[in-house]
Amino acid sequence: MNEPVFWIAPIAALLAMIYARKFFKEMLLQDQGTALMQEIGDHVRHGAMAYLRQQYKIMFLVFAVLTIVFGVLAYYFHVQNPWLPFTFVFGGFFSALAGYFGMQTATRASTRTAAAARTSLPDALKIAFRSGAVMGLVVVGLGLGNIVVWFILADLLIPHSAAGEGVRMVLVTTTILTFGVGASMQAMFARVGGGIFTKAADVGADLVGKVESGIPEDDPRNPAVIADNVGDNVGDVAGMGADLFESYCGAILAASALGAAAYVLDPTLQMKAVVAPIAIAGIGILLSIVGVYLVKTKEGATQKDLLGSLSRGINASALMIVVASAGLLLLLGIPNVWGIWGAVVTGLITGIIVGRSTEYSTSPSYGPTRLIAAQAEGGPATLIIAGVGVGMLSTAIPVLSVGAGTMLSFLFASGFDLNQMNLGLYGVAIAAVGMLSTLGITLASDAYGPIADNAGGNAEMSGLGAEVRARTDALDSLGNTTAATGKGFAIGSAALTALALIASYIEVIRIELVNIGQTVLTLGNGATVATAQATLTDFMTFFNVTLLNPTVLVGLLIGSMVAFVFSGLTVQAVGRAAIMMVEEVRRQFREDPGILQGTSQPDYERCVAISTVGAQREMVLPALLAVIAPVVVGLVLGVAGVIGLLMGGLASGFVLAVFLSNAGGAWDNAKKYIESGYHGGKNSRAHRASVIGDTVGDPFKDTSGPSLNILVKLMSIMAIVMAGVTVTYSLL
Amino acid sequence: MNEPVFWIAPIAALLAMIYARKFFKEMLLQDQGTALMQEIGDHVRHGAMAYLRQQYKIMFLVFAVLTIVFGVLAYYFHVQNPWLPFTFVFGGFFSALAGYFGMQTATRASTRTAAAARTSLPDALKIAFRSGAVMGLVVVGLGLGNIVVWFILADLLIPHSAAGEGVRMVLVTTTILTFGVGASMQAMFARVGGGIFTKAADVGADLVGKVESGIPEDDPRNPAVIADNVGDNVGDVAGMGADLFESYCGAILAASALGAAAYVLDPTLQMKAVVAPIAIAGIGILLSIVGVYLVKTKEGATQKDLLGSLSRGINASALMIVVASAGLLLLLGIPNVWGIWGAVVTGLITGIIVGRSTEYSTSPSYGPTRLIAAQAEGGPATLIIAGVGVGMLSTAIPVLSVGAGTMLSFLFASGFDLNQMNLGLYGVAIAAVGMLSTLGITLASDAYGPIADNAGGNAEMSGLGAEVRARTDALDSLGNTTAATGKGFAIGSAALTALALIASYIEVIRIELVNIGQTVLTLGNGATVATAQATLTDFMTFFNVTLLNPTVLVGLLIGSMVAFVFSGLTVQAVGRAAIMMVEEVRRQFREDPGILQGTSQPDYERCVAISTVGAQREMVLPALLAVIAPVVVGLVLGVAGVIGLLMGGLASGFVLAVFLSNAGGAWDNAKKYIESGYHGGKNSRAHRASVIGDTVGDPFKDTSGPSLNILVKLMSIMAIVMAGVTVTYSLL
Repeated sequence: MNEPVFWIAPIAALLAMIYARKFFKEMLLQDQGTALMQEIGDHVRHGAMAYLRQQYKIMFLVFAVLTIVFGVLAYYFHVQNPWLPFTFVFGGFFSALAGYFGMQTATRASTRTAAAARTSLPDALKIAFRSGAVMGLVVVGLGLGNIVVWFILADLLIPHSAAGEGVRMVLVTTTILTFGVGASMQAMFARVGGGIFTKAADVGADLVGKVESGIPEDDPRNPAVIADNVGDNVGDVAGMGADLFESYCGAILAASALGAAAYVLDPTLQMKAVVAPIAIAGIGILLSIVGVYLVKTKEGATQKDLLGSLSRGINASALMIVVASAGLLLLLGIPNVWGIWGAVVTGLITGIIVGRSTEYSTSPSYGPTRLIAAQAEGGPATLIIAGVGVGMLSTAIPVLSVGAGTMLSFLFASGFDLNQMNLGLYGVAIAAVGMLSTLGITLASDAYGPIADNAGGNAEMSGLGAEVRARTDALDSLGNTTAATGKGFAIGSAALTALALIASYIEVIRIELVNIGQTVLTLGNGATVATAQATLTDFMTFFNVTLLNPTVLVGLLIGSMVAFVFSGLTVQAVGRAAIMMVEEVRRQFREDPGILQGTSQPDYERCVAISTVGAQREMVLPALLAVIAPVVVGLVLGVAGVIGLLMGGLASGFVLAVFLSNAGGAWDNAKKYIESGYHGGKNSRAHRASVIGDTVGDPFKDTSGPSLNILVKLMSIMAIVMAGVTVTYSLL
Repeated sequence: MNEPVFWIAPIAALLAMIYARKFFKEMLLQDQGTALMQEIGDHVRHGAMAYLRQQYKIMFLVFAVLTIVFGVLAYYFHVQNPWLPFTFVFGGFFSALAGYFGMQTATRASTRTAAAARTSLPDALKIAFRSGAVMGLVVVGLGLGNIVVWFILADLLIPHSAAGEGVRMVLVTTTILTFGVGASMQAMFARVGGGIFTKAADVGADLVGKVESGIPEDDPRNPAVIADNVGDNVGDVAGMGADLFESYCGAILAASALGAAAYVLDPTLQMKAVVAPIAIAGIGILLSIVGVYLVKTKEGATQKDLLGSLSRGINASALMIVVASAGLLLLLGIPNVWGIWGAVVTGLITGIIVGRSTEYSTSPSYGPTRLIAAQAEGGPATLIIAGVGVGMLSTAIPVLSVGAGTMLSFLFASGFDLNQMNLGLYGVAIAAVGMLSTLGITLASDAYGPIADNAGGNAEMSGLGAEVRARTDALDSLGNTTAATGKGFAIGSAALTALALIASYIEVIRIELVNIGQTVLTLGNGATVATAQATLTDFMTFFNVTLLNPTVLVGLLIGSMVAFVFSGLTVQAVGRAAIMMVEEVRRQFREDPGILQGTSQPDYERCVAISTVGAQREMVLPALLAVIAPVVVGLVLGVAGVIGLLMGGLASGFVLAVFLSNAGGAWDNAKKYIESGYHGGKNSRAHRASVIGDTVGDPFKDTSGPSLNILVKLMSIMAIVMAGVTVTYSLL
């Protein structure tokens, strides 16, 4: 490797793993609390591991089948990158491994956080947050580490050819891009399955426990209570982690591929462009670790203090990255250094705005959520109408900021020349990398949420005192805010990553066209250009990827529809799985009256098993839709249709995801706002209405909304790996 | 006019008006029933007219301002078609006139339908349906009549120029295209205002009447009951009529403009292509009139018989149009006659499939609605989750059929050559004309719905016997089915019309480029082409309207977001207006206890006035959004950004409209299904849940969903009239 700054990446990845191990070990040394606390913690951990085992079993089957399919396509039909069967398996394995580490940490940390909360708020925050940081650092460490290894391997093994070094590097970068497929597929399992699991358990526990039997939340008599706590880990730790692992790898890999394409004629500059995103990610990891150490608080901290200490860590990391990336890019000597740096900064700022706007739309401190709470006085119908309205309006800021971020990063990187599509789209991908460069610490604050939540549940179930509950409640409430911003961040980064992936799709098409012998493209008015040297504009002209081409247009409509149908499937899946849970809880109450009297223990494991089976079964159809749509559209409508599909899915899926997440989050917090004494407080008419709104919002915000992130990315990456099939066999 | 078949159009338009007058006169001769029935009917009619007067007043102001703006742009800045100020006013005026005629008829017909129902079901059906046909025939008569007159005028007055006859005809057809702007703007007032009015009254009446005071629906003691009945007319007669008036004119005008562009080099063939859509529309009117006469039934008819007799009329019209349009096109001697005919048939079939799929998704006879009803047993939350799921899944068939219809009509008309974009898009526009060719009779069955609904309300309020109620209930229930298919048809035709308008946008851009002196386009690789002769592909290349151009991409995201924000605004508008209504009804009950005892009459007029004021006030923001978005995007992102915006708005808006309409319709019918005795019947837990679902669905299905039709069309036509401004002043 001729570019020394490249080595920042492996060093950073290694450091991430070292610090993750350190935080994990430190957490293990903490007091685990009473025997009862440990028992409850064990229930949750075993439930979570039982779920993971089941998910990994099914994943193993699906990966086995797909690896064979990819192998046949690659080695028999020769319409597939021969590396794919290997990168696919590795991508899936390491994404799953990150989830496994994260869950092992989170489930152990919550007992210890509850134990620490008996004496000290700062200690409890430190344990919970640093345990969250394990997840954050493992994700970025394993992600970047793999990218580094695959890059070195591909660079070593892919031979030099007559087409020249520039084209070879395009091949190298598009080859390692396939690493994203396995990560994406595993994210589908983790995010969709986890989302269904957690909400089936939550809705099921609430409907029978709170509504029918009148026992409070987190009451140990409720058989579904452990499943509910497992769900927080499964959905918000493993699911969120896999989602962002995919975005992280996808953004870096797409940026490298687009960098290789932008400088295909100059191998020296090309290498700099390829290395830049990898090195920026490395710098990001180092400064995220620094940021983690800045998160601390003092006893008696208010909610504002707690939020302030988290923000301090994240903002400090972001600011340091702004400065350090300038130095890095200057050192690298990348052309248009300030333009590329502008793209990095644009990405960082876009991420912050999207996160903040989510907080505005869903926090009880602001107008939208209070409006919903006020409408609760008219009953559930007006509350739900208000929430739908708020959710829809809340799409404006995230879309406008991602739109502005896209436009600006394109203009900065292209030197304000709209015709320099390769350079500009490289800039968009760099913005995605910039946004995700703080992932080590932002993901820490996401994974912190369920740890704090579970600590509260543990404190409740173990009957710890009111003072302890007050501390865990403070931590939990902070977790709700970070969850909201985290969701916004996940959606925003998924949108930018999907954009980068769609842009790099064309690079894969380039390789596949050369593979099938189409070395020359004939453009509109008879002009020809070598496929290897063609610009993005040439490809757009060649495939007529214009908005009035009916294949693009129909693809666009179908993409928009797929986003809605996918959401409909996941929403209904939660409904069905929740009903199974309701029936099981009712059965246990009926068959053993001792449970409700507190004299006999409910069968927690059965509830976990039911949610697990439900989640795995219900996941199949939505996952299949995401995998099959780009393949079928490719076969029928060709390359232009696929790009239409991806853009339609992105445009609708992004906006729909923001709507669903924010409506759900706002209902949740409107309920909490009413519970804190407004509009009649607990058990008022408004409160009963708000509980209904919260239940409606559960699958919106924790299943369908976040799953759309995976849909748009998985469709894009499936299109990328099916590029050879599309080019060879498409009808139109 | 050298093409004799053109004259079918004016004859048909004239006949439509003659038959409309005949049906109106015949209806007036019918028995009006008792004095009480007449009094109630008068209340509704005066309320409706009071609303219309208010709406026309505001419309007058807005039209005055916009006419001045258009005048200044046209005559001072010279960036606007000089005909626009005139066509704009006429388009608005005739759309409003059609609504006025329709309302005058509908409000008079419902009393007479109720009166006839005292003795005969067939007579009642005949009165209601033929009165609905007045609306249908007035819309197509005034629409096509205006198009004929403007076409003749423009053809006479626009001078021959050096650019040749072909280019002149493009100018003629794009000039008359501006007639759609006024129609579109008035549709925004009628559909959005009407939608807010009707649901504010409905939700307000239900929340206080049914829920708080326990009095049944349509009870004359409820002060909002007249407003509720007025709302049915305002929303479903005037709103639906204006919506389809716009689609009808827009589709025909866009088809003519695209026909002119497709054959710009051969004036003889060009004239045939321009005349074809106008003549097909004429044939459609004639055969719709025939169809109206086929709708009749016998005493004691079942629901199936009634639906069968309506379907007979519509299907017979459609079949006759299939045959007659083949003859017409052969007579016209249009090139590729069977391809064009294929597009007509494709449009007709697409309309039928979309309508049927709406019926499937929302009728209690099928699985989706019954699933929602079953989920009502789990309470309002599971019912609402189920409805959202059903609504989202229901988008698949309409999108796939409109997608297939677009693809097929393109391929048929282009001779299966994807590169013949002009010919292909002409085919898509022809498919829209084909779908709307039966409008005379399909709109009759839409307008029939509120007449039957109001007849039922009148029978209830006048205390007519159970047998009479049974007859009006049968008619009303049929109206609910036709309303569902009608909504599907309106959405499907709006999508195809918007597509045709977006395609013809480029033709207007062509004219504007020539106007500002850009007579030559320089394409990608330095080749040049005369602007007047450039193909659509050339324009796509020149403006780089490809999916990876960031302006297109950002436009696409913004378009998708605008659809959601627009829906959020209209949903919240209903919520706010409904609360005003709730407060008024509560006030009347409080201040005069005699109202609830039935001893004093409530103040109906005040409720109508409140809904009117609420509707007019709440309409401003969504209307402004639709008008301003294409202008601002045009100024910032240019032509490519505008096309992105329109396609994003269409792709998301279409799917969102189907989701909202079907979810709302399914909740409504799930409630009716439960009321008919399932899942515990009336007053069960499931029933109470279903009432909440119905209320949530009201603004979905009657305000936001249908309003999205207007949004996608109005944005497209605003883009068209602002083409000159965009071309002259855009930043990028």
